[in-house]
Amino acid sequence: MPNIIHRIGTEKTTVQQLYNAVSSIGGLTNWWTKNISGESKVGSIIQFRFSKGGPDFEVIDLNPLKKVEWKCVQGPKEWIDTHIEFNILKENEETVLLFKHCGWREEVEFMYHCSTQWGYFLIGLRKFLETGEGTPYGKNPEQISNWSK
Amino acid sequence: MPNIIHRIGTEKTTVQQLYNAVSSIGGLTNWWTKNISGESKVGSIIQFRFSKGGPDFEVIDLNPLKKVEWKCVQGPKEWIDTHIEFNILKENEETVLLFKHCGWREEVEFMYHCSTQWGYFLIGLRKFLETGEGTPYGKNPEQISNWSK
Repeated sequence: MPNIIHRIGTEKTTVQQLYNAVSSIGGLTNWWTKNISGESKVGSIIQFRFSKGGPDFEVIDLNPLKKVEWKCVQGPKEWIDTHIEFNILKENEETVLLFKHCGWREEVEFMYHCSTQWGYFLIGLRKFLETGEGTPYGKNPEQISNWSK
Repeated sequence: MPNIIHRIGTEKTTVQQLYNAVSSIGGLTNWWTKNISGESKVGSIIQFRFSKGGPDFEVIDLNPLKKVEWKCVQGPKEWIDTHIEFNILKENEETVLLFKHCGWREEVEFMYHCSTQWGYFLIGLRKFLETGEGTPYGKNPEQISNWSK
C-alpha cells in the first residue's frame, strides 16, 4: 500500500517539545489546524476541522517522547482506516520527526495533494519549533493549490 | 516500489509557463538549483549540483505542454535508476503539476527527507509561477533539516 512520508529535523528544539507538538491538542493547533476537539489519550477520538469538515482520528498509540499513532475513523473516503504515525528520533544534535500517512489504497490525485499539504504543514511545524510561529490551516490560504475550494 | 508524489496548482500561470519551468534549463534554475548544466533534449544528460555534488539525469521524455521524464544515471545511490516525472494538467481554471519520483527500492530515511525537500522546492515552484520568485537551493538554507551538512 502506498504511503506519504516526510522528515523534518532541527537542533533548535527538544524531543519533549516535539512530542508535545504532535501529541497534545494544544500542540497540534500550532501547526495543523486551530480547530481541534477531543482528548489525546489511547482509544479516544480527536476531531480536526477545516473549512468543509475534516477527519476524526482514534488515538492508537502514545509512546512518550517516541511515537504517536492515529487511525482515521471519519473523514475523506480515501483516508478512512489509514494510519498516521509520528516517530521521534535524536540524531546527533538534531531532533528528528519521521512522519508517515500509511495505508492508502491507491495513488489517487488526492494523495498527491495530501503529500504536498502534509509537507507544507510539517515545514510549518519545524518553523513553530524554531520560532514559536507555525503555519496552521487558515493562516496562509492557498499555498499549495485551490483543491479545497 | 515506493514513490514520492506531490501536487501543486495555481490559476496564476499557463500550461506553457509551467512546462517551461520543468523542461528548460533556465526554468529549472528558478526553483530547484541555480547550478545546472547540460541540454534538455531526449537522450541528453542534465547535471544538477548542490553543495556536495548532485544527480545527473538522462532525459527520457519531453512531451510538450504535458510531460517531462528523467532517469537518474549518477547521484545518491538510492536515486540511481529512479525516474522523475512531471505531468501537467489543466483542471478547470487551475494549471496543475503532478510530480512523481518513482522506483525507490526501499522507504529509507533518506526517502522521507527527499519527500519533504521535493515538497519544499515544488511549493517554491508554485511561488515562482505566481510571483516570479522561487526558493531554489541555497536561497533559504536549512528549511527542512540539516541532512545535507
